[in-house]
Amino acid sequence: MSGRISLNAFQIATPCQHTSGAWRNPRSRAAEGYTDLEYWTGLAQTLERGKFDSLFLADVLGVYDVYGGSPDAAIRGAAQVPILDPFTLISAMAAVTSRLGFAVTAATTYEQPYALARRFSSLDHLTKGRIGFNVVTSYLESAARNLGLDAQLDHDLRYDMGDEFMEVVYKLWEASWEDDAVLADRESGVFADPSKVHPIGHEGEHYRVPGIHLTAPSPQRTPVIFQAGASSRGTAFAARHGEGVFINGMRKDIAARIVGSLRDAAEQAGRPRDALRVMQQITVIVGDSDAQAERLHREAISYATPEASLALYGGWSGVDMSGFAPDQVLEYVDTNSMRSTLALLTTADPEKRKWTTSDLVEFMRIGGVGPVIVGGPETVADEIEDWVETAGLDGINLFHAVSPETYEQFVELVVPELQKRGRVWDDYAGSTLREYYYGEGRQRVRDDHPAAAHRRR
Amino acid sequence: MSGRISLNAFQIATPCQHTSGAWRNPRSRAAEGYTDLEYWTGLAQTLERGKFDSLFLADVLGVYDVYGGSPDAAIRGAAQVPILDPFTLISAMAAVTSRLGFAVTAATTYEQPYALARRFSSLDHLTKGRIGFNVVTSYLESAARNLGLDAQLDHDLRYDMGDEFMEVVYKLWEASWEDDAVLADRESGVFADPSKVHPIGHEGEHYRVPGIHLTAPSPQRTPVIFQAGASSRGTAFAARHGEGVFINGMRKDIAARIVGSLRDAAEQAGRPRDALRVMQQITVIVGDSDAQAERLHREAISYATPEASLALYGGWSGVDMSGFAPDQVLEYVDTNSMRSTLALLTTADPEKRKWTTSDLVEFMRIGGVGPVIVGGPETVADEIEDWVETAGLDGINLFHAVSPETYEQFVELVVPELQKRGRVWDDYAGSTLREYYYGEGRQRVRDDHPAAAHRRR
Repeated sequence: MSGRISLNAFQIATPCQHTSGAWRNPRSRAAEGYTDLEYWTGLAQTLERGKFDSLFLADVLGVYDVYGGSPDAAIRGAAQVPILDPFTLISAMAAVTSRLGFAVTAATTYEQPYALARRFSSLDHLTKGRIGFNVVTSYLESAARNLGLDAQLDHDLRYDMGDEFMEVVYKLWEASWEDDAVLADRESGVFADPSKVHPIGHEGEHYRVPGIHLTAPSPQRTPVIFQAGASSRGTAFAARHGEGVFINGMRKDIAARIVGSLRDAAEQAGRPRDALRVMQQITVIVGDSDAQAERLHREAISYATPEASLALYGGWSGVDMSGFAPDQVLEYVDTNSMRSTLALLTTADPEKRKWTTSDLVEFMRIGGVGPVIVGGPETVADEIEDWVETAGLDGINLFHAVSPETYEQFVELVVPELQKRGRVWDDYAGSTLREYYYGEGRQRVRDDHPAAAHRRR
Repeated sequence: MSGRISLNAFQIATPCQHTSGAWRNPRSRAAEGYTDLEYWTGLAQTLERGKFDSLFLADVLGVYDVYGGSPDAAIRGAAQVPILDPFTLISAMAAVTSRLGFAVTAATTYEQPYALARRFSSLDHLTKGRIGFNVVTSYLESAARNLGLDAQLDHDLRYDMGDEFMEVVYKLWEASWEDDAVLADRESGVFADPSKVHPIGHEGEHYRVPGIHLTAPSPQRTPVIFQAGASSRGTAFAARHGEGVFINGMRKDIAARIVGSLRDAAEQAGRPRDALRVMQQITVIVGDSDAQAERLHREAISYATPEASLALYGGWSGVDMSGFAPDQVLEYVDTNSMRSTLALLTTADPEKRKWTTSDLVEFMRIGGVGPVIVGGPETVADEIEDWVETAGLDGINLFHAVSPETYEQFVELVVPELQKRGRVWDDYAGSTLREYYYGEGRQRVRDDHPAAAHRRR
């Protein structure tokens, strides 16, 4: 038997995420709930009851306006718009839980490393070491245009800037405050020893940050680094920086190939193959029985909104399919957005050589462009185990068809089954997110992680 | 009798704020508590019990490194360093309260309006309309140097950028989504009507933001705007944009002059004099009796840390006093930091023509450079009433000597006394922060506010 399967839940603070039309389900609480703290605190408590490692909050700081050259389809179908800032949700969820981790997305392209490092350190303190940073470079032209740039920066330049950005934040987190800098000595009146707080003196190509970090060391210092880049440049970035890596292989063998490439790339970056905790996106529709799950599946399909799916797809791929006929055959187009999307799709089913617009729409009805498992608790557990075994995964990233119902049902029905099989833990070992991935006591980055190079000896 | 006195509590997410050495008090929970959610949720509950309008979270995104040309004194004495990002605290406090407002500080100079507008809209949703935006332009060179600038921008340019920044965020908050844009119609599958969601098309000197706001209308749309600028440019900015305005008059007659100038400036900006809710910074040390309060005052003084005070003062004024002899007479120096600080100080006591370094240090022991009230409940209530009457204030901004003790004692001892006198309310009227200032039902900006000009008719 392999190791424990990490459970992570995927969310965006928006009425509808990857399953287009999911908000229309009468049992969905997302459309009204995404702006309510109770929705989020309830979800966090559900996940902690199911001993999930973390809630992963994705983000887009722009709108999907490629389809038809306007955001209309996205607005109509709630394709990840409107959307809240994920950072604003964390402390409320942290206050009602004690173990659940939180991976929050921020785009290096549009943040100042000095300010973002403080934000993550703040959350690492407040959560007592349960925070992760999902590093993205952003793929939306619409984000670039509204955030001070004339246009999206070149794909590879975004990653170059991302590498330097990470160097800066690592220095702030690891090199500025020594472990024993804070004395908080009421008697002498010395709060911290200035000889143990160091300016980082960073002068690089894209960033200049001379000063000290503004926050004292938090439990993890560097938050757990997550990455999901899938282009070749993105894979290298993920292999270098990632501790948790989210992937989307559309079939098990494809996932196995992605996992293999990531671990190869990790080795090339001087890290052990198992340094990466790789988690596959899977949408699960679970019922008491296979038959009930099938009914839920049909129900979910009945709400699908093709236009919203194509709006999402336009944003990811950079390709406007609004003029495509239903039987138009899709071809790879080189754009400046998510490079991997169309390539992944066209490898999704190698038997099926020609994907058409309608194939895509049908494929995307549930879970966006990722795999879907439908069944009763045993079927779902079997399938998850098989995914993990076949692809060499460390865990799954659970997408939903109905929120928060999918998570409630998963916790009620699937988690006990996986626990019975010894594939997920009965309780958390440790209390910080990094410990869940690397073992109790391992709160700080491992020596093989690039952040460790910036530690003071 | 005049109107209700607004109660606001001042905090920074740091071990020590304006009363240098306050963290050394054995009863202070700030040094350990500022990184704990329980500290913050407990404080919020205390303030709501006392029917405070809001908790005001100030911020500095830099370090006080003018004194001695290094941050050493600030680090040693915990002069507002280390410090957390105030945004990360809000949702936890919002989840345990239902009425208390939150004014959060952000510096226009270092934020992207598109992203910041979303952050505030998110918090306005999550708090159900209890969020305020304390607009600062930042005064620290150390912030500028670490946030991508070669040096601090010129004082007036910061305000020019601030004006355009506000124009952009007003457009995003008021002009992008019509009130009835969101339909959330499950039957038709239309979440929002794209014909009612408008790109703002902003093209200005400093910012270009063509797109739609990413967040649907929140209860207040524009958060309640707070300002504390005190230079002449700052006063004009506050009078134009402010709904709540924080001031620091060192004596009642000085406060009266500041209040007068602000209301004059509001009129010049086309707003009624009472459009501004003006609140004076006051540190209160309250005990069961005057005698006990005097003991608490002496105790607080015993912890004062002169070096930390001078570190703060260096940051505010831009003047390094590390080489100053104790009897050196202070003179006004024109710097690029907070223009008003030295000018205010030298007017603090016109009888006393010559302020020396030691006068300043003595003066700053409690509450930084603001007034202090020491006494039992009736004395404190008398003094607060007198401040409000004499200076024409709308409320106070309560600073502390010991946190959270000052707030607990104030709520226990002073609030009931002020309630007995009919000077503070017995319960909240309304549930959004703007209603507390402008009356029940007034959730959105008034017509006289510049944000209102961007509303769609």
